[in-house]
Amino acid sequence: MLVIFLFYGLNVVLSLIKFRGENMKVVKTVAEVREIVNPIKLQGKKIGLVPTMGFLHDGHMSLIKRAREDNDFVMVSIFLNPTQFGPNEDLDNYPKDLESDLSKCEAQGVDLVFTPDVDDMYDNLKTYVKVEELTNQLCGMSRPIHFQGVCTVVSKLFNISKADRGYFGQKDAQQLAVLRKMVKDLNFDIELIGCPIVREADGLAMSSRNKYLNEQERKDALCLYKSIQKAKEIIGKGVASKDIISAMTEVINEVPYAKIDYIQVVDSEFLQPVETVEGDVLVALAVDMGSARLIDNFTYEV
Amino acid sequence: MLVIFLFYGLNVVLSLIKFRGENMKVVKTVAEVREIVNPIKLQGKKIGLVPTMGFLHDGHMSLIKRAREDNDFVMVSIFLNPTQFGPNEDLDNYPKDLESDLSKCEAQGVDLVFTPDVDDMYDNLKTYVKVEELTNQLCGMSRPIHFQGVCTVVSKLFNISKADRGYFGQKDAQQLAVLRKMVKDLNFDIELIGCPIVREADGLAMSSRNKYLNEQERKDALCLYKSIQKAKEIIGKGVASKDIISAMTEVINEVPYAKIDYIQVVDSEFLQPVETVEGDVLVALAVDMGSARLIDNFTYEV
Repeated sequence: MLVIFLFYGLNVVLSLIKFRGENMKVVKTVAEVREIVNPIKLQGKKIGLVPTMGFLHDGHMSLIKRAREDNDFVMVSIFLNPTQFGPNEDLDNYPKDLESDLSKCEAQGVDLVFTPDVDDMYDNLKTYVKVEELTNQLCGMSRPIHFQGVCTVVSKLFNISKADRGYFGQKDAQQLAVLRKMVKDLNFDIELIGCPIVREADGLAMSSRNKYLNEQERKDALCLYKSIQKAKEIIGKGVASKDIISAMTEVINEVPYAKIDYIQVVDSEFLQPVETVEGDVLVALAVDMGSARLIDNFTYEV
Repeated sequence: MLVIFLFYGLNVVLSLIKFRGENMKVVKTVAEVREIVNPIKLQGKKIGLVPTMGFLHDGHMSLIKRAREDNDFVMVSIFLNPTQFGPNEDLDNYPKDLESDLSKCEAQGVDLVFTPDVDDMYDNLKTYVKVEELTNQLCGMSRPIHFQGVCTVVSKLFNISKADRGYFGQKDAQQLAVLRKMVKDLNFDIELIGCPIVREADGLAMSSRNKYLNEQERKDALCLYKSIQKAKEIIGKGVASKDIISAMTEVINEVPYAKIDYIQVVDSEFLQPVETVEGDVLVALAVDMGSARLIDNFTYEV
């Protein structure tokens, strides 16, 4: 009996070592992921998935850290997903730095990084996952195919990783709400964890797209955060959405070249515009700051 | 050591008994399925799923038998899925006999029958899975939302059952081709098994919808099978599709009230019409026989 317990104990210790990222694996194919992930599922270990498009910043790292805390096994996907970019968007210019991404993952004890090729992920793709209604507001208005691309690739990543938990940033608030609906509607057996927005010292929400900003734009980009601070001052139960929106618009318009894509107050679950603040709302905006389209948001619970 | 082996052996025997349908469970909720299925997955046992809309006939039973042979655990879903019926189709008249279905399942050693309520499956559904291109021919032409409904519910059932294998009849040849594409595109880790068409003694393909036929229609419905026999006589490499179609049309037209929805010769994988028989083709037809819309098909490999 003692021998069995010692043996069991040793196995636990070994598995803890094994599953704490000592030997981070980097693979490109679905078959390789399956080979690694299937035995882990059979052991009843919990898998956390952090889907990314690479060029990892502290926002991503906060997701990875949280996934590392919650799970036995952490998989990060790095895949610049073409199907979520429109024809005139920044797919070709999107920043990349795989080497740096991999060191950051390794430093956080990630177990597996999945870096598939586009041709492998989309071999004559004909299947799309669409979430209706929640995708016709906010970013969905100016990016009509964006969320279909997101939902399709995330469905694929859920099925590939067999993750128990998926980690997404609250900065992409609409993405998180759409994916929550998708998970519920399609009965994916995965828990989605939304993590708080991570900001630069001055308040700018971290984003891979901040890389596009020149020095002046970087300074002026603070107008998004300032408009959110302004909105937080005046928001409250029963306040008219148009008053919040116009106060935020005023702040953004202080930067002459800033072009507002949208400023909206919507209900947190279905993302439909509300006239006054009742229930839980999401206040979100998207602004073209010269070369970068930036987004930011906050939620307010009545 | 001997004790351990005896204990292990006893467990194997017990699990064989347990997983051979001695105690078929019937559940209505996703949570109940998860509770049963999750421990089975953890044991590394293989799960076979047979999705049905109920009113089980020998075609369904052939799927269940095959699933029983291939897997440790067999789940049958009985769900008359409203989202795959168009507004003027036969959802309200579709035959039902749950009691008989359950006895048939029990007799075949099914382990779990899932009979969800519509409200539970579709609580404010906003998410749809769509397969493009393969759904714009054959039944997709006259049933434009049909395959979106099928793909969505089957995605749900795959995620609910966590099945390793899914069983579908070759009678619904387009459904099988569409689902194969969906599984590949979305990386579902499931193997789809297509089972041969099961026919009545005279050749009529078994279908729950045969129930709609009156005595005369039942006799005349044989024209579908006869047209297939005719097509098989003349098909061959290089034969023009239009010649096959016109020969089949002639056979169907012998029944004055039979209304052809389509007769098509398409490639087996992408279901696009071909001018001549090259590669693997699917010859498929749909005919309104008075009160019932019937389908039949065969594949021909060059």
